[in-house]
Amino acid sequence: MSTQKDVITLLISCPDKPGIVSTVSRFIYEHNGNILESDQHSTNQDDCTFFMRISFAEETFQLAPADLRKTFQPIAERFQMQWNVRYSRERLRVGILVSKYDHCLVDLLWRWKIGELTMGIPFIISNHPDLENLAAMYGIPYHHFPVKRETRVADEQRMLDFIGDKADLLILARYMQILEPFFVEAFPQRIINIHHSFLPAFIGASPYGQAFKRGVKLIGATAHYVTNNLDEGPIIAQDVIHCDHRDTVNDLERKGRDVERRVLAEAVRMHTTDRVLIHENKTVVF
Amino acid sequence: MSTQKDVITLLISCPDKPGIVSTVSRFIYEHNGNILESDQHSTNQDDCTFFMRISFAEETFQLAPADLRKTFQPIAERFQMQWNVRYSRERLRVGILVSKYDHCLVDLLWRWKIGELTMGIPFIISNHPDLENLAAMYGIPYHHFPVKRETRVADEQRMLDFIGDKADLLILARYMQILEPFFVEAFPQRIINIHHSFLPAFIGASPYGQAFKRGVKLIGATAHYVTNNLDEGPIIAQDVIHCDHRDTVNDLERKGRDVERRVLAEAVRMHTTDRVLIHENKTVVF
Amino acid sequence: MSTQKDVITLLISCPDKPGIVSTVSRFIYEHNGNILESDQHSTNQDDCTFFMRISFAEETFQLAPADLRKTFQPIAERFQMQWNVRYSRERLRVGILVSKYDHCLVDLLWRWKIGELTMGIPFIISNHPDLENLAAMYGIPYHHFPVKRETRVADEQRMLDFIGDKADLLILARYMQILEPFFVEAFPQRIINIHHSFLPAFIGASPYGQAFKRGVKLIGATAHYVTNNLDEGPIIAQDVIHCDHRDTVNDLERKGRDVERRVLAEAVRMHTTDRVLIHENKTVVF
Amino acid sequence: MSTQKDVITLLISCPDKPGIVSTVSRFIYEHNGNILESDQHSTNQDDCTFFMRISFAEETFQLAPADLRKTFQPIAERFQMQWNVRYSRERLRVGILVSKYDHCLVDLLWRWKIGELTMGIPFIISNHPDLENLAAMYGIPYHHFPVKRETRVADEQRMLDFIGDKADLLILARYMQILEPFFVEAFPQRIINIHHSFLPAFIGASPYGQAFKRGVKLIGATAHYVTNNLDEGPIIAQDVIHCDHRDTVNDLERKGRDVERRVLAEAVRMHTTDRVLIHENKTVVF
Repeated sequence: MSTQKDVITLLISCPDKPGIVSTVSRFIYEHNGNILESDQHSTNQDDCTFFMRISFAEETFQLAPADLRKTFQPIAERFQMQWNVRYSRERLRVGILVSKYDHCLVDLLWRWKIGELTMGIPFIISNHPDLENLAAMYGIPYHHFPVKRETRVADEQRMLDFIGDKADLLILARYMQILEPFFVEAFPQRIINIHHSFLPAFIGASPYGQAFKRGVKLIGATAHYVTNNLDEGPIIAQDVIHCDHRDTVNDLERKGRDVERRVLAEAVRMHTTDRVLIHENKTVVF
Repeated sequence: MSTQKDVITLLISCPDKPGIVSTVSRFIYEHNGNILESDQHSTNQDDCTFFMRISFAEETFQLAPADLRKTFQPIAERFQMQWNVRYSRERLRVGILVSKYDHCLVDLLWRWKIGELTMGIPFIISNHPDLENLAAMYGIPYHHFPVKRETRVADEQRMLDFIGDKADLLILARYMQILEPFFVEAFPQRIINIHHSFLPAFIGASPYGQAFKRGVKLIGATAHYVTNNLDEGPIIAQDVIHCDHRDTVNDLERKGRDVERRVLAEAVRMHTTDRVLIHENKTVVF
Repeated sequence: MSTQKDVITLLISCPDKPGIVSTVSRFIYEHNGNILESDQHSTNQDDCTFFMRISFAEETFQLAPADLRKTFQPIAERFQMQWNVRYSRERLRVGILVSKYDHCLVDLLWRWKIGELTMGIPFIISNHPDLENLAAMYGIPYHHFPVKRETRVADEQRMLDFIGDKADLLILARYMQILEPFFVEAFPQRIINIHHSFLPAFIGASPYGQAFKRGVKLIGATAHYVTNNLDEGPIIAQDVIHCDHRDTVNDLERKGRDVERRVLAEAVRMHTTDRVLIHENKTVVF
Repeated sequence: MSTQKDVITLLISCPDKPGIVSTVSRFIYEHNGNILESDQHSTNQDDCTFFMRISFAEETFQLAPADLRKTFQPIAERFQMQWNVRYSRERLRVGILVSKYDHCLVDLLWRWKIGELTMGIPFIISNHPDLENLAAMYGIPYHHFPVKRETRVADEQRMLDFIGDKADLLILARYMQILEPFFVEAFPQRIINIHHSFLPAFIGASPYGQAFKRGVKLIGATAHYVTNNLDEGPIIAQDVIHCDHRDTVNDLERKGRDVERRVLAEAVRMHTTDRVLIHENKTVVF
């Protein structure tokens, strides 16, 4: 990968009205920032919400982080912005949860190692011991937290206590458990799950089995933020692959693995490069 | 299109057991047929059903249609076959039902005119008068059968009486009405519908509106045989196209039109070239 | 289609330096324009060229066209901009050239009729009389300009004289002739061709025949601006479809028709909505 | 993966004439084989070559390997067949050659480990020491054979001596050297290369750089058998991914890695499951 310059990124959502782009770009220009990328979107609906992602080189920008926040605050208030500033040199810390299937984990670790995903991985958590060697290959601490039906709340509480504030984002890389509401609420819009179907088709268990039974001619995968409505959180990325009558459930699983890992990696890349804004139950991915 | 030789096609479903391929291919060979294409499939499941499509040149084949049927019958009985023979020179007669949207109809008529779809089109039926001119351009009789909620059964009976035995297959090319059970039962496995979503997602009305609301990152279309379970009949073909937050419902409709017409045309091409077998609620498409 | 508001679009290319976005967005804001879409791109290479497309509602904008040009000119000079302003209510006038194949023309005319392509079509020109009826169905004047090898220059000069300033853009919708240099130079960056291969593979004649011979597993289509280097002008859109050993050249042509018309329509939509900027031999498509 | 039964597969090419399917299927039936899959294809061109792949359970088949060969030989002679028999329990031995890029190797090894690719991997050869640890993780012997421009012939001869008859197939998993003709001739139609472009576009070095310069809107990868015409051997599998003006050469490489590894794995899966027949410079992939 090429040497990346340090970048500051502003993510903004606010009611749409004239002057936002002009004001924000002027703010950056006046403090000597050179805009590298700028994307905007407006829902153009009744509510008319405006979204903006604007990134600029940190090198020449004249405000230190605290000063940026202080100086930008009046602009944010004037336009009633929900906003967030991210410094690319502060990599997100991403914890990964897995069960026994390794395809998503293998893929994420490899992309991380070659620098395709720029993030830290403070830990891997699993309810099974199976993937410990894989974690060890990449030098990532692996923690086995068994989860049992009858002690699920206590089990997940123990996981949550362990995680504490060690992670900015959690990835469910085929973690085959439904998280308890209190766990999800501890990481609002900060848990990404990969579901092995093109949602909203085949919600819940055994989507490949459901797909086989229904006789669909394509199967897919969906990366989405986890909410407490099963498989109904905001979708970040989706893709599909064709299949036909020759494909057994095993074949669907094989084809699906390729789609799952690609879709999950894309969603993680988008999140960790600060390209995703959430609005109601949908995403804007710049 | 190149000159097509006349072809005889056998479509066979039966319990799987040794000797079927050998027996069928010997039957063809002994009567001087030259096999052009042969496809087979076995479910390899508990029921273990075997499917075969085998086509051979009519020119050299020594049995006339009636003799073929009579001579093959003992083989069919021996293997408990459900079977069907089709002569390519007897084009299927395909009636088309539409409402107001013209994209699928425009596409089918053009593909038919240039010889891409080999079939006859005895009539176009619509519950609206809007597309009469389009039908006239292609010289196809257009019949306006208004359907009203309160007289639906009588209205559809009138359509059915008109259709009589004029058609081997019906296509719902965005016919925006749910057909009554008695109508569907008059054409078992002989009505193809195009639904504007990747089923089983977004069953029923306004799938593009549903897709927009859910925030999916791809939209699709599904061609399937009509049964009396809405949008749940055997799927013949499906495809999708990517979309993102910039796409309004209008954009989804625009992108979707391209997918709908492509998927419907593919399903019709497969059916009219005798490539589809139905088994339970699924299709084998050779 | 929804009712479209009138929109003003600025297309800008210039050397990249700080302050461009801020200055342009401020210009729009100060004259009461409400920005609807804004896209930018920088090559980030040695030359470091900056590209911008910014559109805003005409309704509230306080400068008339002449005043906009006069007032923006000093900004353009300050940043050494190549720039262009487009009013959406002034539809581009798009002349279409065809030979005998109708698939691209059928598709463009239909998309134009339903309002998917917003443009005027002042004429269709062909070196064959075959598609006159099709043009007549849509009420477009059709002009037959035979082109012969031995009189090609004079023949094309006659076409050019006829076209005069009737068209802002020309589309070669499978016009199977190579235009003379003087003709191409009369419409610099204003002729779009559809080539029936994924360029740069299979330049020149019979790309489907070449593809069949090479045994590729996918075929494609490319829409590009015409230059005097055959099939080497800036690419606007490309797509492919899978094929296999079963596909004859006829099958490749059939599959290809679907890709060609989709790719050409996409390129025309992008050009006619002022979304394409050309830089050296490449395009930026916003 | 499910438990696979042992399977015998016949691969046949011969001049097309009536009776082949009948004779071959009768041969299998008479010796109590149960046909599992059967595919056939005829070029339908001047030469009219017929291809067939037919597989049946070994369990019930009454001929031992030597007897099968002896008994089938008269049939083969009668139809002038080039033919080959493969027993699924005799896994192909596949040697892998790499340079420094690890994405294809990581992917192949993982697919092999989870049983998605059924083959043996007797060795990995590289002209660089970089990927030795990766090989070690999977317990595969890694051999470093430096290749220098001035001693290339001797260097490759040393590799060839080492390989001897240890491998049935070689995979160039981004082995960034052009093999000498004598080396290629030692493994006719038994070396698979992954080229990082949609051939025949961008033959030779730096295809992503070439693609960037040309401004294409999609990039791709091609798996093909190696011949002594660079990048011109029979194509087994190809795929592409969309790109646009935002993509730098680094981005093309990132996107391309995903396509390369998927396409190479597909080609290897097809070869190792005896699904590829070569005819002239093209493949039939059943």
